[in-house]
Amino acid sequence: MKKIIIASTSTVYGGAYLDYLLTSLSELFKDTDKILFIPYARPNGISYDNYTSKARDAFNKIGKQISGIHEFDNPVNTVKEAKGIFVGGGNTFVLVNQLYKNGILSELKESINNGTPYLGTSAGSNICGLTMNTTNDMPIVLPPSFKTLGLVPFNINPHYLDPIPNSKHMGETRETRIKEFHCFNTQPVVGLREGSWIDVNNNQLILKGEYTARVFEHNKSPYEVESGYNFADLK
Amino acid sequence: MKKIIIASTSTVYGGAYLDYLLTSLSELFKDTDKILFIPYARPNGISYDNYTSKARDAFNKIGKQISGIHEFDNPVNTVKEAKGIFVGGGNTFVLVNQLYKNGILSELKESINNGTPYLGTSAGSNICGLTMNTTNDMPIVLPPSFKTLGLVPFNINPHYLDPIPNSKHMGETRETRIKEFHCFNTQPVVGLREGSWIDVNNNQLILKGEYTARVFEHNKSPYEVESGYNFADLK
Repeated sequence: MKKIIIASTSTVYGGAYLDYLLTSLSELFKDTDKILFIPYARPNGISYDNYTSKARDAFNKIGKQISGIHEFDNPVNTVKEAKGIFVGGGNTFVLVNQLYKNGILSELKESINNGTPYLGTSAGSNICGLTMNTTNDMPIVLPPSFKTLGLVPFNINPHYLDPIPNSKHMGETRETRIKEFHCFNTQPVVGLREGSWIDVNNNQLILKGEYTARVFEHNKSPYEVESGYNFADLK
Repeated sequence: MKKIIIASTSTVYGGAYLDYLLTSLSELFKDTDKILFIPYARPNGISYDNYTSKARDAFNKIGKQISGIHEFDNPVNTVKEAKGIFVGGGNTFVLVNQLYKNGILSELKESINNGTPYLGTSAGSNICGLTMNTTNDMPIVLPPSFKTLGLVPFNINPHYLDPIPNSKHMGETRETRIKEFHCFNTQPVVGLREGSWIDVNNNQLILKGEYTARVFEHNKSPYEVESGYNFADLK
């Protein structure tokens, strides 16, 4: 029984870290008080210790204890023994590079597919898709591969942004970038707006939060789906 | 005598393709009427032919003839024989991947260092830096390396964007992304705002256009430099 929350962002505007998700996280992690945190994505370049403290403070509010994976000698065994896993946001290239370096991608995939509850936010959500090719992050390091966990049969674009009206900036919009992705790749992409998440319960993949999501399929016009939509048939 | 224009963007808001640069391009390419265009970056996924037509139309205005590199059988020899080179914008990952695939990076570097005048816009400017690690583009394909031409001893961030005041978006600002880059890399980064370019004449690297540029050095606070600034000592 796969149980996953794939969240666009850890923090919504004006809110505290993870606050808007705490009720859902109590439910997701109801069978364990201990959660393994993987701080590899290092937002703002913060240290693993500081990032783990931040996650710890948030999970304390719902009575859960956080350990950082870097506190253990053997990351593979640590993933194997975890009863709940949280991969936080930051830079997806740095995260994926470190997951490959420590050889834990296949272990993570197996654990989560076997029912270990998982929370991903931002970069931690990108890796739930087939590949990290639809991250918004800057490629500050080169990972050996862009292939990720494939927990869902499509790609995620977190922090999805609509074109800014009347913008004078000539850089690509998010939609343009995803259209370019589809010149070279065929899997669908779900653009998740901040405050949205996908709640995966085995074969149900339900859009949660108050916003619509934007779906990009190869050779189709993009379309919006409402909160409550089930992505079960998207592949 | 190295002669290069490294432009943040091909097009400024409200303008036509390359229009704001045409006077400078007449000067840059004054010794040749024929310019080789490299359309590999494929903005919006357009074909090489269509992209080359677009460049052709712009350069016609200053009496220059454009050929697309894809119209020739041997890209390496074509670069070697070119009297002027223009690499247009689009997706930097796609561009760099194709440059590696066709084995023309070292030829490009040699030609330009030996004096073949070069124009880069956006992705074509990113590759003038030491690496493409500071592109803004989506990683829609995985190139074999992020190492680029190193025509200047720092990295370029084109389409540089200041934080948007009162934005409720929680994704990283450009400045945050470049700070994260400096957790893993030490070379300076020049953030070029749209409408700015660097005019390289051998050892003079002068900021042109009406805007300041933002310079990021490892372990230093970022700072602004005025139009007319010489980056000769930045390394």
